[in-house]
Amino acid sequence: MATKVHVGMETEMNGNGRNGVPEIVKNSWKKRLLDFPGKMKRFTGCSWRTIWKAGREDPRRIIHAFKVGLCLTLVSLLYLIEPLFKSFGTSAIWAVMTVVVVLEFTAGATLCKGLNRGLGTVLAGSLAFLINYIATRSESVVRAVFIGAAVFLIGTAATYMRFFPYIKKNYDYGVVIFLLTFNLITVSSYRVENVLKIVHDRFYAISIGCAICLFMSLLVFPIWSGEDLHNSTVGKLEGLAKSIEACVNEYFNDPEIKENQDKSSEDPIYKGYKAVLDSKSIDETLALYASWEPRHSRHCYRFPWQQYVKVGAVLRQFGYTVVALHGCLQTEIQTPRPVRARFKDPCIRLAGEVTKALMELANSIRRRRHCSPEILSDHLHEALQDLDTAIKSQPRLFLGSKKNQTTSNMLALAAAHAARYKQEKDHGVSLASVKTESSAFLEWKRKRVGREEAKENERKALRPQLSKIAITSLEFSEALPFAAFASLLVEIVARLDHVIEEVEELGRIACYKEFNPDDDDISVTCKRPPVDVTKNQLPSHAF
Amino acid sequence: MATKVHVGMETEMNGNGRNGVPEIVKNSWKKRLLDFPGKMKRFTGCSWRTIWKAGREDPRRIIHAFKVGLCLTLVSLLYLIEPLFKSFGTSAIWAVMTVVVVLEFTAGATLCKGLNRGLGTVLAGSLAFLINYIATRSESVVRAVFIGAAVFLIGTAATYMRFFPYIKKNYDYGVVIFLLTFNLITVSSYRVENVLKIVHDRFYAISIGCAICLFMSLLVFPIWSGEDLHNSTVGKLEGLAKSIEACVNEYFNDPEIKENQDKSSEDPIYKGYKAVLDSKSIDETLALYASWEPRHSRHCYRFPWQQYVKVGAVLRQFGYTVVALHGCLQTEIQTPRPVRARFKDPCIRLAGEVTKALMELANSIRRRRHCSPEILSDHLHEALQDLDTAIKSQPRLFLGSKKNQTTSNMLALAAAHAARYKQEKDHGVSLASVKTESSAFLEWKRKRVGREEAKENERKALRPQLSKIAITSLEFSEALPFAAFASLLVEIVARLDHVIEEVEELGRIACYKEFNPDDDDISVTCKRPPVDVTKNQLPSHAF
Repeated sequence: MATKVHVGMETEMNGNGRNGVPEIVKNSWKKRLLDFPGKMKRFTGCSWRTIWKAGREDPRRIIHAFKVGLCLTLVSLLYLIEPLFKSFGTSAIWAVMTVVVVLEFTAGATLCKGLNRGLGTVLAGSLAFLINYIATRSESVVRAVFIGAAVFLIGTAATYMRFFPYIKKNYDYGVVIFLLTFNLITVSSYRVENVLKIVHDRFYAISIGCAICLFMSLLVFPIWSGEDLHNSTVGKLEGLAKSIEACVNEYFNDPEIKENQDKSSEDPIYKGYKAVLDSKSIDETLALYASWEPRHSRHCYRFPWQQYVKVGAVLRQFGYTVVALHGCLQTEIQTPRPVRARFKDPCIRLAGEVTKALMELANSIRRRRHCSPEILSDHLHEALQDLDTAIKSQPRLFLGSKKNQTTSNMLALAAAHAARYKQEKDHGVSLASVKTESSAFLEWKRKRVGREEAKENERKALRPQLSKIAITSLEFSEALPFAAFASLLVEIVARLDHVIEEVEELGRIACYKEFNPDDDDISVTCKRPPVDVTKNQLPSHAF
Repeated sequence: MATKVHVGMETEMNGNGRNGVPEIVKNSWKKRLLDFPGKMKRFTGCSWRTIWKAGREDPRRIIHAFKVGLCLTLVSLLYLIEPLFKSFGTSAIWAVMTVVVVLEFTAGATLCKGLNRGLGTVLAGSLAFLINYIATRSESVVRAVFIGAAVFLIGTAATYMRFFPYIKKNYDYGVVIFLLTFNLITVSSYRVENVLKIVHDRFYAISIGCAICLFMSLLVFPIWSGEDLHNSTVGKLEGLAKSIEACVNEYFNDPEIKENQDKSSEDPIYKGYKAVLDSKSIDETLALYASWEPRHSRHCYRFPWQQYVKVGAVLRQFGYTVVALHGCLQTEIQTPRPVRARFKDPCIRLAGEVTKALMELANSIRRRRHCSPEILSDHLHEALQDLDTAIKSQPRLFLGSKKNQTTSNMLALAAAHAARYKQEKDHGVSLASVKTESSAFLEWKRKRVGREEAKENERKALRPQLSKIAITSLEFSEALPFAAFASLLVEIVARLDHVIEEVEELGRIACYKEFNPDDDDISVTCKRPPVDVTKNQLPSHAF
């Protein structure tokens, strides 16, 4: 945010500098006042869009918001209704606190936090009671010193424990709650007579808060982390399938079509695989929460969250190969289009088969049934064979092109540039003598204003350009980049195997039903678009 | 944890089943009792190692733990010292709470949370006061209903707001604190006369807590997120350099050496790039915190955290290509060693130059000086040219090998298997007739025990094997995978350019000092190993 303000200030200052200060200030105020209704309108419109979008993306968010409101109101009744307040007193405030902190978006997260909070509170209460029991026997000053020392030692030890990997992963929240409760009880015990009463009341209040949270999150429109993990896995498989298809199509299409696509908001290839690449932390969080959730399938002993994490890892590996394939589209050295065209059909066919297999895997997980036995079909093998034949039929491709002569010339030029650049850097020789030899140099020279600026420009403009000349001029053999493309396609088929293996293992562990070709006749066109689960992960620092 | 217990139970139950129950139970108890001292010893040893390791990995953790302990003790004095307690009363407990919640590992995180907490508290206090002001005018029951409705509405709205991307990224913690404070004040105001007094006291207590936290985290051994971001960027560059070097060496080395390396704990190639791949969330968190930190350099207006995020993004893109290069080592189709040997020298030289450039970039960032102007040196271009020449000198490589005959045979076999497998799946035909034709089939058949198990085995054993046969039998042309390897190396050089560009931009924004070749003569061998910053990110759900 600070940056935005800063940028805004800079623009404004530039504006002032141009036209003289007082006039512009007056004008700008006037303009702003006149613009105010428009601005308000835009702001309201923008806010409404944000509110609407958040709800439309995932309607469960609205449900969750209402659940939190309801829980808070229920727990407030402990204070608002006379008989309840009489039995709980001001401790009821702890129930309110518990609800704000514990009630999370998914059932698993709520369970995890609720149990951590319970455990932390019980341990802290016991320890605080023990310390208080020892402290009460001594006189006031000694007691204060003793309590201070205990607070310091326990605080240091508990904070240090949070860095142990096992504690951090599973019980970090519990340790924080332990630290908090311990300090609150120990410190306030110095001024209060009956600590046992505090501990007792607080424990009841927190239990009520936890109970309301668990009831709400497990029984009223429950939202399962396991379900999210399941859906995100399906979404990732489909995304990868779309990516590969789009990637191969773009590689063999006309550059004009490509240009048009680039102008659209987001690259469909990148959109397909980006969710896979950064899925590690989100997968692990969802799996952690899912591991706390009770099973929600009749067939299986428990939710196979570990296998979902494994599938996620294999998909990431698969995704990296897709990124490399995408890289072939953006690389500096490009195989000429006529060369590519010769291999268009087998490549598109192979990619189509891979896409089909990925979609079948996605359907298998979505419908919780085993994969079709034809998933690695003859078609895939035939497509591989076709590609092989096509490559073998073009032996002269890798022999290097007629452009070799030009290439060497360009290389010599690049080398000369590099040498001259180095010389100039080392000895401060003027650049004037170079001027006539390179048009890029000429242009760059023209832009030069001062000595300092020149240094920057030099650094930015000259070096990358040299490297690009060097790489594009080295044509290697024309088809080398295509060989990489083809090899990566084959590599994708090989990795597909690992993906199929893990998905089948998932089917086995989760007791998916047998494959029945008739089931697939029912199409799933009416399904709403997949929810982006990453956007629902509220950082669970709840207060 | 639940899984571990479960697995343990299973093993135990299997043990019981084998030898008869009562005897084994007695024995196992006896054994356990006898084993108890040993177990305790192992447990203590293990705990000590964990404690020692956490401190040795990053000594700042010990400092942080002591800082938390000290802050808690300081804040407890508000309760323990008589005159202080008289002026604050029980509100002092809020200062304790604030310290536990706000004091984070780095200064930026503490600032971010502290200011969020302050903002949330002030807003919630104002709103609660307003609501209370309206409510006091009505009679008791209406007031209770009004408060309940307000709690419900504000709770629902605030929770829903947490899903807006902008709020979620910057002010999520503030919203939670707002919700908490608002509820606590509104609800308790029903039973308390002077709400203004509550708000006032609480505000002072929280301010004191925040002040202590900020003092501790900014002035006493401060730990900067920006510093961590800086170091992790250096570490990532070095890791990538090591990965590429190890990758190319392994590709051209004898398989025996490779075998030995695989047995060691972790693959050095994977170790080098793994930190880069999953760095997105950690980079963004560190940058967010760093954006709250005051500048800590004389030269620059503010810490260029956005540029570090950009460098991180470019490094991830670079990393994906390294993953693809690593994939060439693990792929099913392997280029024969004699073929590889012909290109060994130019490839190793090129990788060496890339490694050198990456190390120079790492040094540039570490010492906060501009890159050496020779970073994209003539050597790199010469190495590229060498590789080009080497590839052009072997035109017959891509023509396909003499093995073509065998290949087609193998393909035919694979196709036959696939067809037969499909047939058997569809019509339940016995597999007996296939028996004589394939040794792999034979082996698999031998393992078969029951009908159900067979189905599982079939799924697991037959299909991947088929796909492997298909891929390895399609030799394409022998050098196709090598072409991919070479092309990826060239691609890495091209991407190196983007990395250099972003790092130079970083140097410009952060006002790095000019490059001076003499500085580099001082070696940095005594530097301690880089700290893994990912392990310091405590989930900031603090209470």
